[in-house]
Amino acid sequence: MAAATLVRRIGRSGVLPLCCRPPAWDRTPRPPPGLPLAPGRSFSNNKIQVELDESSGVAMMKLKSPPVNSLSLELLTEFAISLEKLENNRACRGVIITSSVPKIFSSGLDITEMCGKSVEHYTEFWRAVQEMWLRLYGSSMVTVAAVNGSSPAGGCLVALSCDYRIMAENPKFSIGLNEAQLGIVAPFWFKDTFVNVVGHRIAERSLQLGSLHPAPEAHKLGLVDELVPEEKLMEKAAAVMAQWLALPDHARQLTKTMMRKPVVDRLVAHREEDIKNFVTFISKESIQKSLRMYMEMLKKRKS
Amino acid sequence: MAAATLVRRIGRSGVLPLCCRPPAWDRTPRPPPGLPLAPGRSFSNNKIQVELDESSGVAMMKLKSPPVNSLSLELLTEFAISLEKLENNRACRGVIITSSVPKIFSSGLDITEMCGKSVEHYTEFWRAVQEMWLRLYGSSMVTVAAVNGSSPAGGCLVALSCDYRIMAENPKFSIGLNEAQLGIVAPFWFKDTFVNVVGHRIAERSLQLGSLHPAPEAHKLGLVDELVPEEKLMEKAAAVMAQWLALPDHARQLTKTMMRKPVVDRLVAHREEDIKNFVTFISKESIQKSLRMYMEMLKKRKS
Amino acid sequence: MAAATLVRRIGRSGVLPLCCRPPAWDRTPRPPPGLPLAPGRSFSNNKIQVELDESSGVAMMKLKSPPVNSLSLELLTEFAISLEKLENNRACRGVIITSSVPKIFSSGLDITEMCGKSVEHYTEFWRAVQEMWLRLYGSSMVTVAAVNGSSPAGGCLVALSCDYRIMAENPKFSIGLNEAQLGIVAPFWFKDTFVNVVGHRIAERSLQLGSLHPAPEAHKLGLVDELVPEEKLMEKAAAVMAQWLALPDHARQLTKTMMRKPVVDRLVAHREEDIKNFVTFISKESIQKSLRMYMEMLKKRKS
Repeated sequence: MAAATLVRRIGRSGVLPLCCRPPAWDRTPRPPPGLPLAPGRSFSNNKIQVELDESSGVAMMKLKSPPVNSLSLELLTEFAISLEKLENNRACRGVIITSSVPKIFSSGLDITEMCGKSVEHYTEFWRAVQEMWLRLYGSSMVTVAAVNGSSPAGGCLVALSCDYRIMAENPKFSIGLNEAQLGIVAPFWFKDTFVNVVGHRIAERSLQLGSLHPAPEAHKLGLVDELVPEEKLMEKAAAVMAQWLALPDHARQLTKTMMRKPVVDRLVAHREEDIKNFVTFISKESIQKSLRMYMEMLKKRKS
Repeated sequence: MAAATLVRRIGRSGVLPLCCRPPAWDRTPRPPPGLPLAPGRSFSNNKIQVELDESSGVAMMKLKSPPVNSLSLELLTEFAISLEKLENNRACRGVIITSSVPKIFSSGLDITEMCGKSVEHYTEFWRAVQEMWLRLYGSSMVTVAAVNGSSPAGGCLVALSCDYRIMAENPKFSIGLNEAQLGIVAPFWFKDTFVNVVGHRIAERSLQLGSLHPAPEAHKLGLVDELVPEEKLMEKAAAVMAQWLALPDHARQLTKTMMRKPVVDRLVAHREEDIKNFVTFISKESIQKSLRMYMEMLKKRKS
Repeated sequence: MAAATLVRRIGRSGVLPLCCRPPAWDRTPRPPPGLPLAPGRSFSNNKIQVELDESSGVAMMKLKSPPVNSLSLELLTEFAISLEKLENNRACRGVIITSSVPKIFSSGLDITEMCGKSVEHYTEFWRAVQEMWLRLYGSSMVTVAAVNGSSPAGGCLVALSCDYRIMAENPKFSIGLNEAQLGIVAPFWFKDTFVNVVGHRIAERSLQLGSLHPAPEAHKLGLVDELVPEEKLMEKAAAVMAQWLALPDHARQLTKTMMRKPVVDRLVAHREEDIKNFVTFISKESIQKSLRMYMEMLKKRKS
């Protein structure tokens, strides 16, 4: 109790000038409130199911957007709003993020959001990608990724942005920022997040090769912290969460901010520029053509 | 000899603009000279015993402040002065830092210095903490930590600031920046020092959890460089020191400065601000109350 | 093909503001074109032999300057020009760098270039060292070092600047930035390159000790990516190259630029200053004397 008081004062007193101000990204425009913000024990959106266990203070966020949990505008918006609701709920101290779709955690950004839409739509979409990351990477809650399936590109980013990553030890599941395989380039803030987890050298090689690392390799590289048999994944995630929640919140939060603020600030400082660049790029007819061809190929594969 | 001349010239010529200037922290006010500065073969203060073997050029600095070598204002001041004396003694090229108290290297900052004292005292105390780190982390001598006991918080910082860390392989001894466990936050320069040793990811996790790592785990994480049986610790420290001293001093010193200067400069640039923040924080009645409660608890534990 | 188009657009559109501009170092004066720039299947200079396999798009660059492939002004100039020729040859996508001298990859900078010459000569030499590194570290081609012998100092820098390092697993071959052993200090851009490969802690220790790491140790530290029996080195290098070339060029190139640009930019920003410092340093009579003594010693050793 003394410790809790102590740390609460640190937060207010500004003893750590580098990390005590309210996070800068929290002063940027928020996504439109499509859902009621009143906190509740559980709420289910279209694409994400959230259950909060008020006794433990731990929420479970399940991505449920079959077939592959692709990060559509709708899912991203629900993601950011769900995080905001939990962040504002004093009963919630930690979030476990997982998938309710078998074999896949998330397949990354939804390509259909980037094809045949208006400039306004692209702008909204990219802002939602940024917003999701800013809220997740900068969350004051403990965030644990229970990676129960493959997790390429944007899916990998979600996992990388958590405080801890546990993955099912199935070597058929892979994870990585494989954008280069598709001929595209991970944005600088994906890269910064990756470097903060695996270091410069592994990031340089993995990003250039667009590597998707099977679970055992991902663990060896430090991309995930732990592997467990799939059936023990949720149990382990709960145990890890309990370990992190044993710490006084404020000290942990300020420490997290101190570690992550430089990378968060970099996107915040270049956010509008980053959106503008994305929209200019994606609006080109040549890119649109490429994307249409890619989607055709995906459709043929399905049928 | 040619090599030695060569490197001496590098020092003077400024061929390396990033690292040749006299270190910036050396232009800050020094601690009051409470002890005679005349170099001698050995000198014993109240809290630290120093023995210099002039034949090898190696000094042994033993912390001797039972029961737990807590870093009081007196010990910190003696620490900085001892380092300065050795630094100014041309016969001294390296320092081995160890403890003469069984089972403990150092327990970290002395909480009694932060409780019930004047603003002037807090100011003096925090400046002494900074000064110790600036002198140790930026020392031009080879510094080897012979960690012969547990070493939490500020004790861990002392070890992290050396060039090399050898620890007794006793799994009962642990080491780490565990400030978060106490509800407080490691200052940014503790964090920078830690990141430079173990990298961003391990630092992020360990700082948030306030982990105290048993010796074998600390070795695995890279927090210490080597484990040896306790009875071989000093012998090993001497051997490591001899290896480092086989290099020409100036080349090694300039290289060390090149590696550490950015982190040293960061505190130097924010030193007064860092002191002011600490003093404001620690002077609050709520914090003082918390500290009094904590000390009560420690007293009860003892009796 | 869609992917290739996609990524080509990224390059032109500037969607990644941090990495899309033509590299800054490409706007600095180029080395005098001592050789015809017309691309050809193979060309042999005095010190370097280059063979381009147009079917695979892979060039083999062999250093052939016995007895130790020291990096003379001539070799460095040929190195930079060869890289430029290949870079401008659309048929070339990757370069394997190796040595045709038994047991040595490269012994580093040629000391005779720094001794008894004019200020103009020193200026030209140091600019050539910088130019080689800027072209190699910033190359848009895939660069693989097939390290078939020892590789101290500048030789190690060549390997560190490639995208991937394979070394013959002979423990008699060693590699490292051992400048400190000779009483000199690795320039800051050698250090930056090293830190990007092995991280801060390993670099700090290795640079201060001037360590030459035997191949197995170099592999353990991450200084080289892979060890193979010497007779399989070229085969393995070709296999690794094929793996890297399986990626669309533009995405890989932009990713590489994103990772390496900060370090390249740092030298570009301080290039003239770096030259001036080197020339001032090396022109001193005391340094010249040291170098003459060192060369005498080398001559005696030979005879």
